[in-house]
Order: sequence, then structure tokens, then C-alpha cells
Amino acid sequence: MKHIIGILGGMGPAATADMFQKFIQLIPASCDQNHIPLLISSIPDIPDRSACILNHQQDPEQHLLTYLHNLEKAGATCIVIACNTAHFWFDRLQAKSNVKMLSMIDSTVNCAVKMGVKKIGLLATNATVATKLYQNALEKQGIDVVLPTTEGQDQVMESIYLYKAGKIEQSVSLMEIEQQALLEQGAECIILGCTEVPLILSEAMKKQPHFYIDSTLELVKTAIDWYYQQ
Amino acid sequence: MKHIIGILGGMGPAATADMFQKFIQLIPASCDQNHIPLLISSIPDIPDRSACILNHQQDPEQHLLTYLHNLEKAGATCIVIACNTAHFWFDRLQAKSNVKMLSMIDSTVNCAVKMGVKKIGLLATNATVATKLYQNALEKQGIDVVLPTTEGQDQVMESIYLYKAGKIEQSVSLMEIEQQALLEQGAECIILGCTEVPLILSEAMKKQPHFYIDSTLELVKTAIDWYYQQ
Repeated sequence: MKHIIGILGGMGPAATADMFQKFIQLIPASCDQNHIPLLISSIPDIPDRSACILNHQQDPEQHLLTYLHNLEKAGATCIVIACNTAHFWFDRLQAKSNVKMLSMIDSTVNCAVKMGVKKIGLLATNATVATKLYQNALEKQGIDVVLPTTEGQDQVMESIYLYKAGKIEQSVSLMEIEQQALLEQGAECIILGCTEVPLILSEAMKKQPHFYIDSTLELVKTAIDWYYQQ
Repeated sequence: MKHIIGILGGMGPAATADMFQKFIQLIPASCDQNHIPLLISSIPDIPDRSACILNHQQDPEQHLLTYLHNLEKAGATCIVIACNTAHFWFDRLQAKSNVKMLSMIDSTVNCAVKMGVKKIGLLATNATVATKLYQNALEKQGIDVVLPTTEGQDQVMESIYLYKAGKIEQSVSLMEIEQQALLEQGAECIILGCTEVPLILSEAMKKQPHFYIDSTLELVKTAIDWYYQQ
């Protein structure tokens, strides 16, 4: 059977493109044909995940399910979601999907466990924080989570929306303040638990890569492992 | 009707990712939902296009057609191909496709016409040059085409394969020699007529953007125009 990994993306498109690039960079290919087959859905009209969870606005589940099934129709045999907040719907989507799905949250937490981290920072959307997607999984593993202050968390969210709106410099400067605050609170490293955050902190990550766990990169590694195990 | 642009890619994956990035960069979006919906097929087992045209090796048409139809099944209402050489099969694919296709060759030649260029260089694969995909279209418009020498063309092809194999520095140094040679032969500007070439010459393009017509960028502009006209 020929395997194809489907990326359910568009949340936002730049984060989806970043995941695509990471698949390309991690494969030691000597020609086109060595690369892993991917199908990418970057259809960005999926209602805002945070606005649904926090403010009871339009639920994105039906859009997510439609685009997931469209990836299946096009031949995807495994699905990954290029958005942490959307993992709030992961179990419901997996229950209705005909193919295997791989979780970004699990991939990222597994990395923290392997690194032996005891106290970890989290930079994520307000909704990812509020739903405790990461905190519950990390605490089960005996890892303490350091979060931004209430005001700090609002700045993280503002930074993410600024990045999505193309206001890169303002976005970077807000996020750098909040990541520094987490390190000062004793976090040994920081989970970049929103797929825009590795883009926002790309320069900081180049300087000190050991301070960060990039959720996009961890899911890509899991998906590549899955592919080669088939 | 909701429109979705399908990118038939994987030839190679890095060039497909470059096309995806160009769609994102050209849309002045203030939030995720403003971006253009895309479905991207990056399934790289499509047989080598140049090897088929020049050496009668395996024909990629059936792979191209299957992946094109899979994009249609997933909802694409317009298809673009992220590979110049594959445009050798464009008319046959359009005849069997249920949706509109937009040509990279036409988009690029239209740009040269609008710029009023009279003598233009071409950096493309051996097969794109041999099939005269660009030369015939440009000559119809009264534009003279400057090609690399026979040895130079082999270096262009070698540069493209080196890039696909991740040997970036060697690739760049070969291609920069050949583009310089075209300018010295009197080309007013150069068509980057293989989707790997804008990646290989990215630094040179930043310094002197007016010397280049990027076939990927021109097709993306055509596709965005098409989308907003619907």
C-alpha cells in the first residue's frame, strides 16, 4: 500500500508552509522521488478555534471534518493537524476519520519526557492554555508547567494575531518578552505550543535551540517515523 | 461556488513549498481567513520529466493525471502545475481535467511581453529547452531567446539536480556562472524557467530583482487574479 501523509492546515497558512518545509528539510533526499508524499489542505476559512472555545463563536468542527475527509478522498492514509488549538477536537475527528491521525500534543510531550525536563514553559494560544491540552498531559508525566501571567498571556495571544496579520516586528518583540519571562520563572525550556510561535521566535531559536521544543517539528518527526514504519 | 486552487507539485517538493510561500506572501491578509484556499499535492514519485522527454524513460503522464484528479476529488476548482518541464503534458492534462488549468509558460511569457523585453535569457531544464516550450511562445511575441551554450546547459541541469539533492552551494555556484553568461550575451533579463531556479538564485534575485522573471511567481500572480475574478 502506498502511504501519503495529509496535513490538515490553513490555521494559519504560514504555519502550514512551515510544517511542509520541515518535512522537506528532515528528509535526506538525493532526488525528488526520495521525499515523503504529502497532501496539504490550506483552506483558511476554518472558524477561529480560540474564538469558539473562549467566546462560544462558530464551531470549526464541521470545517475540520470536511477538509479531513477531502484529504482522505485525495489519498491521504495518515493525517496530521498543523494547529495546536485545533487538537481540542482531535479525539472527535479521529473517531470520524477513516485513517490514522498523529497528535501534535503527544509528540511534543514525548519530546519533553525524553529530554528529562522537570519544569517547562508554555507559549500557546489563550484557548490551548484554557483547555489545558498541554498542562494535563505534562502533569501526568510529572512535569511542572510555567505559564505567562494573565497580562503576559494576553500579549502572547496578541503576538500570534499580529503575526497572522503580517505585523512581524511587533509580533516578535511581544513574544520575546514573554519567552524571557518564562525562563526567568525557572522554566528549563519552552514548548512552542502554537504553530505560529516557531515562526515568531525563529531568530531566538537559531541562537539557543536547546531552550525550545517546537511542536511543529516534533509532529513532523513523529509522522516521518510513522511513514518509515509502514 | 467556493473556489480552491490545487497545486500539482512534488517536482520537486522544495519548489512546491516555494510556490505555497509565494501565495501566502502576495495576499495582503489581516487574518487566516483572508488567505486563498489551496490544496497542495506534493507526491514526488512522479517519474523524472526530463528523463522521459530526452531518454524515453518512464512517462509521468499517468502519475500527473492521477494526482490531478485527486486534487479535483478533494475540491480543487482550478489547477496549477509547480513544474515548467511538466507543462510538456499541459494540453493533454487540460483535455482530461474537469477544471480550469492555468499555464506557467503563458503567465511567464505574458510578463515578458508586458515588460517590453526584446532579448531574453532562459534558464531551464534540458527537456524544457529541447521541447521549445518557452522559445516557441516567446518567438511568437517577437522576443529573441538567448540560451546557454551546450556545455553551459549541461551545467544548468547539473545545478538543478544538485539542488534537488540538497547540495545547495555547488548548485548556486554553477547557476550563477550560467546566468552571468546569458547577461553577457545581451539578454536584458532572464526567465527562471524551472521552479528550482528561483530557489538556487534567491540571493542574486534579492540584489537585482529586475534582471529576472520568476516563473513560479508569475503563475501565482495569474492564479490569484483568477481567484479574485470568480
